[in-house]
Amino acid sequence: MELLARLTALGFSAADAQTLADHFEDAERRGKRGHGFARVDWLETLPGIDAGAEPECVVAEACYERWEGRGALGYLTLAAICAGQLEDPPEAARLIVARDCFPTGMLGYWARRLAAGGLLAVLTATSPPRLGHPDGGPKLTGTNPLAIGIASSDGKPIVSDVSMGRVTYGDVIAGAASDEELVPFGGEHAHKAFALAVGLQLLVDSLVGDGYGAVMLVAQPAADPVPALRLRAAGVRLPGDG
Amino acid sequence: MELLARLTALGFSAADAQTLADHFEDAERRGKRGHGFARVDWLETLPGIDAGAEPECVVAEACYERWEGRGALGYLTLAAICAGQLEDPPEAARLIVARDCFPTGMLGYWARRLAAGGLLAVLTATSPPRLGHPDGGPKLTGTNPLAIGIASSDGKPIVSDVSMGRVTYGDVIAGAASDEELVPFGGEHAHKAFALAVGLQLLVDSLVGDGYGAVMLVAQPAADPVPALRLRAAGVRLPGDG
Repeated sequence: MELLARLTALGFSAADAQTLADHFEDAERRGKRGHGFARVDWLETLPGIDAGAEPECVVAEACYERWEGRGALGYLTLAAICAGQLEDPPEAARLIVARDCFPTGMLGYWARRLAAGGLLAVLTATSPPRLGHPDGGPKLTGTNPLAIGIASSDGKPIVSDVSMGRVTYGDVIAGAASDEELVPFGGEHAHKAFALAVGLQLLVDSLVGDGYGAVMLVAQPAADPVPALRLRAAGVRLPGDG
Repeated sequence: MELLARLTALGFSAADAQTLADHFEDAERRGKRGHGFARVDWLETLPGIDAGAEPECVVAEACYERWEGRGALGYLTLAAICAGQLEDPPEAARLIVARDCFPTGMLGYWARRLAAGGLLAVLTATSPPRLGHPDGGPKLTGTNPLAIGIASSDGKPIVSDVSMGRVTYGDVIAGAASDEELVPFGGEHAHKAFALAVGLQLLVDSLVGDGYGAVMLVAQPAADPVPALRLRAAGVRLPGDG
């Protein structure tokens, strides 16, 4: 079955199905198969998806917003948050926290949307505990990616998007990695990725409360450093470049 | 010569010398020698330290502040910023950007001060270009640490503080590592630490403009996740614990 048809068959509206399909297709284009069509298979096996659920912005101040997923997929909550930021950008900066926000897909995708709209975005999100201390012990944190999107006057934002896992859970879903490989990245320096994962986990947990959440900082750039960095890089591949 | 005397001999006021000494002594206590007394030797060799310089807050809105170092050491600018946040905490969240803010020392030290005062803090800062792409090419970013400090009702904040370098420049100064080891950490996954360093570099450069700068997010916690994490960790060493 065609992608949109499979998603509407799950109960999603045409608009929500398109939002999801855009994300999965972008993942496939970028070679991130674990965040691509494999996720549709996964959604089809998830019990109790509430395809009609709609996220809600429950606190909207000039520089702080709080959202509740209300049972919607995290993709749809982040899409709604991004649309809101582009429509009503912060004067200087705004912190957005989202509770009940899972799964969130490739965080760089959302950061890129905001950067393409001329904003800076920093985004992290939690997921089920999958990483433990490199020396062993219980799984304590999600893979907790950190995505940073930077607008550029040359129309080519730079977007870094780093999961703290050696592999992604998406890779595991897609069969490209085993569960045993899902440890903090970094080999002999894996304590660094573990520390980042713990810090990001607690940041989200502190701001959001129980459950899986997302935290996003959106800000207005005061300068335009990307073109000069591209020049200095002299052809070296920069994060997020195709 | 005794530490405070060496610092006042450089021209610092008694208060500023105490601020600096507190930082260097904490670094030594934590075994981070590269951020400890070795920095005093380094300061003594730096030409043109303006020991009388004072940082200034030039924009102070409810949720956004902009600081100028005005030639002061970054340590003193961050100390002034932290004191300001503790004195007048944000209602929900505040973004603080600091231009001309170098050197900044152990970023976890500043995040811990705010976390000890009941706040959440996320802090990054740039430094001279010392990291290049793991595959080679020019040095493009500082080591750009990311520090996250999380308040806890048990009085023991969790503070993660991760430099994107395999070693710190402080280690190089202290003679504990060679300049060739100053590459993105992570071995075969060093592109991840490089991506984080680039993202953080551009975040600071976009918000701050030219020169070395620091960016700090300070927020009020809505929950208290640290005690539960310590329980689940069952004795595993968590970031920043002594």
